[in-house]
Amino acid sequence: MGITIKKIASDLGLAVSTVSKSLGDSYEISEETKKRVLAYVKKLNYVPNASASSLKKRKTGNIAVVVPEVADSYFSTAINGIESVAQVKGYHVIIYITHEDQVKEQSILQQFKSGRVDGVLMSASSGKKITNHVKELFASKVPLVFFDRACEDIDAAKVLTNDFESGYRATELLLKKGCRTIAFLHMSENLHIIQERFRGYHKALQDNGIKPMKEYIVSCTSQDTKNHSLIKKLLSREGRPEGIVGSTEKLTTLTYTVCNELGLRIPGDTKIVGFSSMGIAPLLNPSLTTITQPAFEMGKTAATILFKILNGKKTDQIIEKVVIPSTLYERASTGE
Amino acid sequence: MGITIKKIASDLGLAVSTVSKSLGDSYEISEETKKRVLAYVKKLNYVPNASASSLKKRKTGNIAVVVPEVADSYFSTAINGIESVAQVKGYHVIIYITHEDQVKEQSILQQFKSGRVDGVLMSASSGKKITNHVKELFASKVPLVFFDRACEDIDAAKVLTNDFESGYRATELLLKKGCRTIAFLHMSENLHIIQERFRGYHKALQDNGIKPMKEYIVSCTSQDTKNHSLIKKLLSREGRPEGIVGSTEKLTTLTYTVCNELGLRIPGDTKIVGFSSMGIAPLLNPSLTTITQPAFEMGKTAATILFKILNGKKTDQIIEKVVIPSTLYERASTGE
Repeated sequence: MGITIKKIASDLGLAVSTVSKSLGDSYEISEETKKRVLAYVKKLNYVPNASASSLKKRKTGNIAVVVPEVADSYFSTAINGIESVAQVKGYHVIIYITHEDQVKEQSILQQFKSGRVDGVLMSASSGKKITNHVKELFASKVPLVFFDRACEDIDAAKVLTNDFESGYRATELLLKKGCRTIAFLHMSENLHIIQERFRGYHKALQDNGIKPMKEYIVSCTSQDTKNHSLIKKLLSREGRPEGIVGSTEKLTTLTYTVCNELGLRIPGDTKIVGFSSMGIAPLLNPSLTTITQPAFEMGKTAATILFKILNGKKTDQIIEKVVIPSTLYERASTGE
Repeated sequence: MGITIKKIASDLGLAVSTVSKSLGDSYEISEETKKRVLAYVKKLNYVPNASASSLKKRKTGNIAVVVPEVADSYFSTAINGIESVAQVKGYHVIIYITHEDQVKEQSILQQFKSGRVDGVLMSASSGKKITNHVKELFASKVPLVFFDRACEDIDAAKVLTNDFESGYRATELLLKKGCRTIAFLHMSENLHIIQERFRGYHKALQDNGIKPMKEYIVSCTSQDTKNHSLIKKLLSREGRPEGIVGSTEKLTTLTYTVCNELGLRIPGDTKIVGFSSMGIAPLLNPSLTTITQPAFEMGKTAATILFKILNGKKTDQIIEKVVIPSTLYERASTGE
């Protein structure tokens, strides 16, 4: 009997999986057992075969998820999609929040280069399109997959949704409902996905012979109070927009609050479509018409690609782009 | 000039903070710089003074937050409270989700014993009250602070809210509004905080001469579809409850959905109070009366205690219990 994992397991009275995992330095195995296995392996001069060394790719048993925020239905749902895959693979998901701060994001990614995790799933923070730190991570061969918010100039795998079409459809719906003045609320103008949503909005207006107007495009900030007054100003002006596209969940719910404060009726005084994965959109007053991103599915798909890379079924750094379409749910906020 | 960090910094042409952080093995410093500093320090036979060695407690620059879920307003808000403190301290917060799975929780805590993080903030998962793995972590001297869901039998610091009083007040409000039959929805009967909320509900009924009845206490599960039919059954029965206390956010919003499906009016046909930190509770149809836990404050306080431990300002393992009260917001779901 040659030296195989089976033999080692049998000699030591351990399960084959325990020996495999010990050789892969899995966190599931106690230090004591690992030491015992490694000492025996050393004694035998055993060299793990291809199958065993592929386990070596599993260095930490952890994958990192880097997101701007968790208090947002898109990200919390996408994380659950990621977990659904990681769970099956026996991996832990570790979540890091950037709060849209690129300096923080940089410092987080820095950690990964030293092998703290086996792979990274990332939704980039907004900001001034600085991507050097992400490029460095990618160059350091840490498996990386983007979801939702990708760095366009980095050739890592990406799982996206159809933001341009969604922006177009949201705007088109409002036009069909008779709105001629339509506002677009956004808070991260440097983000590609927001630019795409805006491009869709812009194109839908143009296709319908309406000139997009600067005063209906509201650039919000990271501060809720500032956004509150920006939206209040928009809704208090003469020529209040007949329709509103909220490109971010937070801005859409804030618009509801402002309408309540001003005594404006939705959809009577203004109609609203929001980008949101919020499960309780139908329970709002009025129920909210949404462009719902396939958040769970996107997380799940991104994690599946990452594990393909980790399993060596793909080259370490693959260029793959998966687009999963969003769904328009028409509800009372765009009704009569 | 004696050998001080200042001198070392000056000799090497580095900032004092860079030398400090290098001695503390901070992730913020490149390996190259750390090696350079350590080599020089060794050459000088420099022994760090008290201030420098206190930095040694900062081994990873990371603290872990272990929560059952992030798709819940309480936890996502508490995490933001924790981040608000960690940010100032220059620490990263890494989040682990247990999905109420104690085996998963066990495997996560296992990692921490090997020094992956400097400290742990934890909200325990529900389940059969197995706490051995938490006890082991605590015994291994990893600084640990509980928030919201504590293991009662472990003497670590705890940041809690007044669940008993809140359960009492929620029920009392419904009684004042004329409800005589009041249901209690819960999904984690092994959790101390849920038991406390239930105890408050029970006591309020008794104090008002109403006998608590088994058929109004609904034990839900982790499966949404199962819960959906349990709540549907409750609301379809003869003697439908006039009031409902939802002890978990998910069950409360599910009750709204079921009422919509059955054509029941809230508050006309049944009144609802929910435990929730949801910012958009006022935007629901009807706006939801809530017991709002001080989620952000609780996260912030727990993190502050943890950093006191890390800074050595408290003994490593302190017994401290902070209770921050929840607030009752009366809204339309308990109106006329």
